[in-house]
Amino acid sequence: MQTNPHHILLIKCPDRAGIISTVSTLLFQNNLNIVVMKEFVDPVTNTFFARAEIAGKLSVTEIKKQLNQSFQHNSTVIDLKPSTKKSIVILVTKEHHCLSDLIIRHHFNELNAYIKAVIGNHNTLESLTAKFNIPFHHISIENKMHVEFEKEMLDTLKIYQPDYIVLAKFMRILTPEFVAAYENKIINIHHSFLPAFAGANPYKQAHKRGVKVIGATAHIVNNLLDEGPIIAQKTIPVDHEYSVEQMVKAGHEVEKSVLAEGLRLVLEDRVFVSDNKTIIFN
Amino acid sequence: MQTNPHHILLIKCPDRAGIISTVSTLLFQNNLNIVVMKEFVDPVTNTFFARAEIAGKLSVTEIKKQLNQSFQHNSTVIDLKPSTKKSIVILVTKEHHCLSDLIIRHHFNELNAYIKAVIGNHNTLESLTAKFNIPFHHISIENKMHVEFEKEMLDTLKIYQPDYIVLAKFMRILTPEFVAAYENKIINIHHSFLPAFAGANPYKQAHKRGVKVIGATAHIVNNLLDEGPIIAQKTIPVDHEYSVEQMVKAGHEVEKSVLAEGLRLVLEDRVFVSDNKTIIFN
Amino acid sequence: MQTNPHHILLIKCPDRAGIISTVSTLLFQNNLNIVVMKEFVDPVTNTFFARAEIAGKLSVTEIKKQLNQSFQHNSTVIDLKPSTKKSIVILVTKEHHCLSDLIIRHHFNELNAYIKAVIGNHNTLESLTAKFNIPFHHISIENKMHVEFEKEMLDTLKIYQPDYIVLAKFMRILTPEFVAAYENKIINIHHSFLPAFAGANPYKQAHKRGVKVIGATAHIVNNLLDEGPIIAQKTIPVDHEYSVEQMVKAGHEVEKSVLAEGLRLVLEDRVFVSDNKTIIFN
Amino acid sequence: MQTNPHHILLIKCPDRAGIISTVSTLLFQNNLNIVVMKEFVDPVTNTFFARAEIAGKLSVTEIKKQLNQSFQHNSTVIDLKPSTKKSIVILVTKEHHCLSDLIIRHHFNELNAYIKAVIGNHNTLESLTAKFNIPFHHISIENKMHVEFEKEMLDTLKIYQPDYIVLAKFMRILTPEFVAAYENKIINIHHSFLPAFAGANPYKQAHKRGVKVIGATAHIVNNLLDEGPIIAQKTIPVDHEYSVEQMVKAGHEVEKSVLAEGLRLVLEDRVFVSDNKTIIFN
Repeated sequence: MQTNPHHILLIKCPDRAGIISTVSTLLFQNNLNIVVMKEFVDPVTNTFFARAEIAGKLSVTEIKKQLNQSFQHNSTVIDLKPSTKKSIVILVTKEHHCLSDLIIRHHFNELNAYIKAVIGNHNTLESLTAKFNIPFHHISIENKMHVEFEKEMLDTLKIYQPDYIVLAKFMRILTPEFVAAYENKIINIHHSFLPAFAGANPYKQAHKRGVKVIGATAHIVNNLLDEGPIIAQKTIPVDHEYSVEQMVKAGHEVEKSVLAEGLRLVLEDRVFVSDNKTIIFN
Repeated sequence: MQTNPHHILLIKCPDRAGIISTVSTLLFQNNLNIVVMKEFVDPVTNTFFARAEIAGKLSVTEIKKQLNQSFQHNSTVIDLKPSTKKSIVILVTKEHHCLSDLIIRHHFNELNAYIKAVIGNHNTLESLTAKFNIPFHHISIENKMHVEFEKEMLDTLKIYQPDYIVLAKFMRILTPEFVAAYENKIINIHHSFLPAFAGANPYKQAHKRGVKVIGATAHIVNNLLDEGPIIAQKTIPVDHEYSVEQMVKAGHEVEKSVLAEGLRLVLEDRVFVSDNKTIIFN
Repeated sequence: MQTNPHHILLIKCPDRAGIISTVSTLLFQNNLNIVVMKEFVDPVTNTFFARAEIAGKLSVTEIKKQLNQSFQHNSTVIDLKPSTKKSIVILVTKEHHCLSDLIIRHHFNELNAYIKAVIGNHNTLESLTAKFNIPFHHISIENKMHVEFEKEMLDTLKIYQPDYIVLAKFMRILTPEFVAAYENKIINIHHSFLPAFAGANPYKQAHKRGVKVIGATAHIVNNLLDEGPIIAQKTIPVDHEYSVEQMVKAGHEVEKSVLAEGLRLVLEDRVFVSDNKTIIFN
Repeated sequence: MQTNPHHILLIKCPDRAGIISTVSTLLFQNNLNIVVMKEFVDPVTNTFFARAEIAGKLSVTEIKKQLNQSFQHNSTVIDLKPSTKKSIVILVTKEHHCLSDLIIRHHFNELNAYIKAVIGNHNTLESLTAKFNIPFHHISIENKMHVEFEKEMLDTLKIYQPDYIVLAKFMRILTPEFVAAYENKIINIHHSFLPAFAGANPYKQAHKRGVKVIGATAHIVNNLLDEGPIIAQKTIPVDHEYSVEQMVKAGHEVEKSVLAEGLRLVLEDRVFVSDNKTIIFN
C-alpha cells in the first residue's frame, strides 16, 4: 500500500533561534510533508533535538546535503532514513519470559523487527525458538575463557549483522570490547528500578531491604554495568507477603513489558542518546 | 526578573503542508524565539493544532495580523496572549478537600491563578477561606427557585470577572443558560472515571457494581451532565474490603489530585477543546 | 516432593461471634496446620467469608462433616478441596494476544491449569495451538443458527469436562442457556474498564468520548452482557494522540495482563462470588 | 457514640500450630468479638504476626495476662491497647507541602492524630501553623553545636510527649542519640524511591542519572541514614522534559501522598517492625 515509505529525520545540534523554521521550510520546499515533528531543547547543555516523520518522495543524499548546508556546525548530527523494519539478534540464558514475549510479537507481526537469531549460553530455550523456526545458537561458557566465549558470539553476530542486540535476561556481563563493537546498539532489561539494586540478584536485594515497590529497567548497555542510558522503567507495588520467588514472578511481568516498550521506542527511531541519558520522542 | 513575559500562541486550522514552516519563519523574522512548540494533526477531522511558547518582545496585534494574513482560512483560530496568571472563582458545597488543596497551592504561590473568591451553597467552608483572606459568598439554594439561585451566583461572578470557574465538589447541576454564559470556562471534578458512574453518588454506584478501580475526572462543563470534554483522569485500585465510605475517602485523594492537574493544564493554556474532546499540549 | 498437598478451605456463612475460634480449633484438633487464613465480613449483608490453606493429612469427608456439624446453618457454604491444578478450555475468535499469553504460561508450567483444548469460531489461531500440541476445534457460526453453534460448543466441552471456560477475546455473545450450563465457571476479558463502554467496540467508544484512561476487566460471565462479577481491572493512561488502532494495541497489553491475573485468582480458589460481586483473598 | 472503643491486639511470636485457635478462643471466652484479624507468618524467620481489632468490654490487664499465660515464650510480644487517637509533633525546615497536607487533614479531623506542635529549624512555616492555632517552635541551628540543637528539640519534645515524631521534609540529619530516644517512633519522608538516591539532593541525582520514574519513601528512622524500615513507597513517571525543578515539583505531590499514607498506617497501629522491615496489616 505504502509506495513511498515515511522517512525519519533526527537532528541534534547546538540550539539557536530559527532551527524549526530552517528545517520545516527546507522540507516544504522539497515538497515533503511533516507528518509529525517533536522537538526538545536541553537547557543544561543548550542542545536542540528533533525527530520528524516525513511523507513524500525524497533522495536521502540530496536532503541530507541540503540540511548539512543549512546547519554547518560540526557538532550537528543529522540522520535521515526510511522508516523500515530493523533486524535484531536476541541473547538469552535460561529464563523464557522476555524471549517468549518477543517471539510471539514477532510471529504475529507486531514487533517492528526481524528476529534473525537467538543466542543462548544455555540451550534451555532452543525448543521454543524451534517452534517458530528461529535459528538458535548454543554458545556455552563452560570450559572456555570469557574472551573466547565472546569471540564465538561476535562471530555468530557477524553472520546476521543485526541492527540491534537484545539482552533478554542474558545473565553474563559483556566486556567493554564487546560493547564497543555494538555502541548504543545493545538493549538490556535489568530486573530492578535502577539505580536501585544494580548487579546480581536484585529481587533478593529488594526482599532483604523490604521495599514496597519493585520494577524493571530497559537501558542501553555501556561499559559500566547497569549504568547505561535508561530507556524505560516501570514499577509495581509489593508487600511483606512477597517471598523472593514471588517477587521474581511478579517482576517477570514487568520485565517483559518494559523490554517490549523500550525496544519499540528504539526500533521506531524514537531514542536519542546524549550524555548518558535518553531523549525519547514518543 | 522576566521583563518580557513569554507569550502563548495557539493555532487551530485545517491541516495542509507547510504550516510549521509558515509559522516558524514568521516568528523568526520577527526576532521571536520558539521556546517550545508542540503540534498535533487530528487525522479524523484533518485539523492542525499547535501551541508555542514564544520569547522576545512583540506586539500581539501585529503578530496576530501577520499570522491571520498567512492563514486566511475562515475556520482558522489564532490566539496569542502573554503567559500571565489567570483568575478563578471556586464554587463549593460542603466537602473541603479540593478547595483546601487549591487554597494551599494558592497561598504558597503554586497555583498559577488568583483565587478571587469562593462561592458556597453552604457556608461550611467559610471559616477555611477566612484563614487565608479569600472572600466567601454564601449563596444558599434554600427557599429559592433554581433560576434565582443561579442569578445570584452570576451577579456575584460579575463582580470578579474570573477567567475560569472551578467546581470543586459543587453538588448542584448548572442550567444550560449558566453554562452558556461561561462557555468552555467552567472546570468540574467528577468523582468517577467517566463515562462510568455519571450522575449522583458515583461511589455508591461503584460499590454496588463491585469495581476493582475507582477514579476521578476533571472536565470542562457543557450542557450535558458529566459529558463535557475530559481534561484529566486517574484511577486507583480498590477491593472488596472498601466500604462506600472508604471509597469516598480514597476517592478524595484522587479527586483533588486530578482537579489540580486538570486546572494546571487549563491555566497554562495547554488545553484545546475540539469536537467534545481535548487536545492537550503538556 | 509435596506428599500431602495443601487443601483449600472456603467458608461463607452468616456472621456471628466465635467463627474463627470454632474453625481454627477444629482444624488444630485434627492435627492440621493453617498455613494462611484470610477472613472478611461483609457489613452490608453480615456475611462471613474465609479462605484457609491447610497443611497436614486429612480426610475431606471427615473434616467437612465436622465443619458442617459446627455450623449447622442452612445458608452456610463449606468447600474443602486439595489445591490441585484445574483444567480449562479456551474460547477464541481471531485476536491472539490473550491466547498466546496463556499458551506460553501453560507451556512453561506457569499457568496453574491444564489447557485441555481451544475452540475458535474462526480458525485463525489454529496454527498457534498446533505448535504447542493443544487440540483446536474450529466451530464456525457460518450458515448456522446460534443455538446450533452453541450446541456444537457444548458437545465439544463435554468431551473435555473443564473446570473453567476462558473467553480469551471470544467475540460472540453466549445465551443464558449456555451460561447456565457453566454457572460461575466462565471467565471473560472485556476490553474496557467496566461499567464504562460495555458492549461492542469499546475502544471506538473510548476514542469518541475522549477519555484519558482505557482499561480492561476480567469478570465472571452471567446472563447480563458484561455485567457479571468483576474479578480484576486495570487502566492505562492515553491521550489525544492515540488513534482507535493505537488504543486497541495499547489495550491488548492490559487485556492479557488482566486476564492472566483474574484467571490466576480463580484457579487458586481465591474468588468468592456473592451478590454479583467478588470477594478475593489474595 | 462508641461507648466501648475497639481495642487493637498485636502479637509477634515464634510460629507454631494452634496460635489462631488459642487467641481466637481466648477472646471468644471473654465475650470479645474479633471485628477483623489478619495474620502473617514470615517463612524466613518462622515468626508469626497478627493484628486484630476487638470489640467488646475488656480489661487490658486481664486479657494481656491471659494471653501471656497462653504463650509463655519469652520472645513473644503482645500489645493490646484501645484504638485511640495518637499525638504527634512535626519537624520541618522550609518546604510546606507535607506540613500543609497534614495540617489540613488535622483541621478537618481526618488525620487520626493530634498535632501537638511543629518544630522548624527555620521559621518559614510559622505563619501557616498560626492560622490553625498550632504551636510553632523555631529552633535554629545557627551559631550552635549540633548537640545543642538537638538538646533544644528534645527539651521541646518533652513538653509535648508525642506518640510519634514526623519529619515532614526536615532537612537535618538526626544523631543516633536522638533517634534512640524515640526508637521506632520517628517517621520520615524521603524524596526518592529508596534505596535509590539516598542522601542529599535525590532529584538532582535522579535528573543526572536520567531515570524514567521518580518517587518517595516513608520510613521509620533508625541510626543509618535513609536505611530504616520502609512503610510506604510510590513512584510516578517522568521523562527527559523534566528539569530538576519540575522533578522537585512533581515529587512534592508524591511525597505528601506517601507520607500521609505511611503515617495513617502507623497511627492505626498497622505496622510491625521486624528485622529492619515492616509487616503491614492494612
